[in-house]
Amino acid sequence: MNKEDKRPEIVVIGGGFAGIELIKSLRNAPVNLTLIDKHNYHTFQPLLYQVASGGLGADSIGYPFRLIFRNQKNFRFRMAEVKNIDSTKKCVETTIGVINYDYLVIATGSTTNYFGMNKIEQWSMPMKSIPDALDLRSDLLQEFEFAHNTKDLKERQRHMTFVVVGGGPTGVETAGALAEFKKYVLPHDYPELENNLMKVYLIEAGSRILAGMKEKSSIKAQKYLEKFGVEVLLNTAVKDYDGQTAFLNNDTEIPTSTVIWSAGVKGQLIEGIKKESIAGGRYKVDVYNRIDGYENIFSIGDVATMSTEENPRGHVMVAPVAVQQASNLAKNFRNKLNGKTLKPFKYNDRGAMATVGRNKAVVDLPSGSFGGFFAWLVWMFLHLMLLVGFRNRVVVFVDWMWNYFSYERALRLIVRAFDAEEAAKEKGAIKATIE
Amino acid sequence: MNKEDKRPEIVVIGGGFAGIELIKSLRNAPVNLTLIDKHNYHTFQPLLYQVASGGLGADSIGYPFRLIFRNQKNFRFRMAEVKNIDSTKKCVETTIGVINYDYLVIATGSTTNYFGMNKIEQWSMPMKSIPDALDLRSDLLQEFEFAHNTKDLKERQRHMTFVVVGGGPTGVETAGALAEFKKYVLPHDYPELENNLMKVYLIEAGSRILAGMKEKSSIKAQKYLEKFGVEVLLNTAVKDYDGQTAFLNNDTEIPTSTVIWSAGVKGQLIEGIKKESIAGGRYKVDVYNRIDGYENIFSIGDVATMSTEENPRGHVMVAPVAVQQASNLAKNFRNKLNGKTLKPFKYNDRGAMATVGRNKAVVDLPSGSFGGFFAWLVWMFLHLMLLVGFRNRVVVFVDWMWNYFSYERALRLIVRAFDAEEAAKEKGAIKATIE
Repeated sequence: MNKEDKRPEIVVIGGGFAGIELIKSLRNAPVNLTLIDKHNYHTFQPLLYQVASGGLGADSIGYPFRLIFRNQKNFRFRMAEVKNIDSTKKCVETTIGVINYDYLVIATGSTTNYFGMNKIEQWSMPMKSIPDALDLRSDLLQEFEFAHNTKDLKERQRHMTFVVVGGGPTGVETAGALAEFKKYVLPHDYPELENNLMKVYLIEAGSRILAGMKEKSSIKAQKYLEKFGVEVLLNTAVKDYDGQTAFLNNDTEIPTSTVIWSAGVKGQLIEGIKKESIAGGRYKVDVYNRIDGYENIFSIGDVATMSTEENPRGHVMVAPVAVQQASNLAKNFRNKLNGKTLKPFKYNDRGAMATVGRNKAVVDLPSGSFGGFFAWLVWMFLHLMLLVGFRNRVVVFVDWMWNYFSYERALRLIVRAFDAEEAAKEKGAIKATIE
Repeated sequence: MNKEDKRPEIVVIGGGFAGIELIKSLRNAPVNLTLIDKHNYHTFQPLLYQVASGGLGADSIGYPFRLIFRNQKNFRFRMAEVKNIDSTKKCVETTIGVINYDYLVIATGSTTNYFGMNKIEQWSMPMKSIPDALDLRSDLLQEFEFAHNTKDLKERQRHMTFVVVGGGPTGVETAGALAEFKKYVLPHDYPELENNLMKVYLIEAGSRILAGMKEKSSIKAQKYLEKFGVEVLLNTAVKDYDGQTAFLNNDTEIPTSTVIWSAGVKGQLIEGIKKESIAGGRYKVDVYNRIDGYENIFSIGDVATMSTEENPRGHVMVAPVAVQQASNLAKNFRNKLNGKTLKPFKYNDRGAMATVGRNKAVVDLPSGSFGGFFAWLVWMFLHLMLLVGFRNRVVVFVDWMWNYFSYERALRLIVRAFDAEEAAKEKGAIKATIE
């Protein structure tokens, strides 16, 4: 029996921002780390909307875990889905078998929340993963192809109407990208389609978009979006959608073939944790990110909710919280191994930002906020730096330069399994003699 | 009625090398061009194997037709599959309706030929399209993940054994890329897997690989492959495959989870052309690429077979033939419009090339042949130049530099719809307790 057998086994479920930060921070620590994820790569979620809108390739915002941690000796990866946690046997049951742990860290993040509206779940498009973004890209582009197949202008407009639900950063950025498509790509590449038939709606249930940012930034972002041609509807909710028409709570209807749902997220829970440890669909954790009622099970990031005086309902579900919790938990693992006292988590809010479209973004700092071209440069620079992998940074930079100077979105391949006839039928694309 | 209504309608089916060359060559000609393709993009097939092996992104080798021809006024695109040709009514029936033509050009290219072996078709992977290449990439990478799930070394070896069938350029290049993966990626990123368990076979029914090239090049390419660790089996055929074991015609068996089928192609035929006009699965055309027995229907590229004195069984199915036939046909359309006499097609064979792996390629010229590092540089330069779109050239260049200096293949995302459990079961990945 060698020395390594005595190392504690830390099993991490989920390789999002929290998971990879934790593993990185435990480099060279005397522990064995096993990462379990259903994908074999880390997804840089803030740029998913650019994959969906044809500005970036899928490969540029994903990076294989094995490559991220190729030189980290205490790391191993298992591609699997976790089906159950057995806290008495200290193991997780996965699609590839049982994996034992000494310490378990749940960092599964969040998933799309449809609030129980099954028809919306069935017909709208989510945007939480790379496959989602590729599906959305294929769908968007197909709509324009379908629009060519009918001379009925109402039907054509339905295919060219895009409803984005949810005014958070994802919704704002997606609506902005679609508006850019209308302005710069449509007139050149789809000359047979009437530009004014294309509509982009951004629908937000609250009284302002980007509710997590300062009010000044919300107002500025809305102004930018409206200048780009996006119709922003505040205090409005989509209550139903049947694939043809979106029904709003103010009794109006929008005929549309595409609803993009970014109106809510919920924690991605796993079977096996007792109900009393869950609140609002997230795991209740103490200031050390330990799940209530468990000794050896921790949770970090979006799926954890830490009730503090400043945040009685938990922190906002954003990447910086996830990264800081991971970093603090890693420190506490080291503290524990060294017999030191544990450090409670404290969130250091450095600000927030969102991009709206070409040359336009808004940035909140603790000390103030600003918007416009300089904010857009800051947004681009920071996102480039946060991307994992040198290759991805270079290729994203090349693509951004290309997009900026050519006004194009070149990455418009419809590559998801496509049955033209089936899709056309499903989407109500009319078959007609084309003269 | 304006002038344009009198322009002849030329309908082109298929946007491969032949189709896009024809359309490009008819720029500014007084005709209306309609391109029909089931994909919305042109595929640069020679680099498909690099997408499959994680060296290039899918977006880098595809380019949207609408972007290629964005400034060509006489061009329009329809994304559809053609179901039937009605030569009496002069129209094609498609998944999106009926499209009329004055002249029809069939440029549908070729599709994978399994020679009627249904089990091989069911279990092996083809590589003719971008979705195929992405499926293959996901499958290859999953095999290594599955290999981790078993401690039975025989089972593990099955997952790590790759059988490439067909010694043409695609087969040779794929086998070379897999051998590179074994040499440069496996030891770093899969340290738990035994390197010597990974096997790459290239199986060719004829007496040499690259049968379309000079014998000297065949021998050289085989030597390179063997040096990279590929086991080349000549005069050997795969006669059956059940997803677990490949059965060879010499009564040996290779346990393998992955068979890549590049052993044959056949013309991609469309319903509606009479049988007498088809030979060997391709359309018989005269020296003007007109299909036998039809006045207004032409065929160019892989799907056409032109019997001449030099090539009684038709030209080889390669891109240069397709491009030259397209260019000649375009000239003849112009000749016809100007009342000039038509020019018969004559193939100008400028040579052939194939890459084998890092630093190694073979090039045939009419005057001789050469191989090695310089051939590899020539191969890379020519392929960069032949790629469509400036953005794609830059990104492919960046990726090639990255791959060369890092020895990595970073684009290893498993993005095709993946059901871990389902796939594991199907592929015989054993469920076990992982210690």
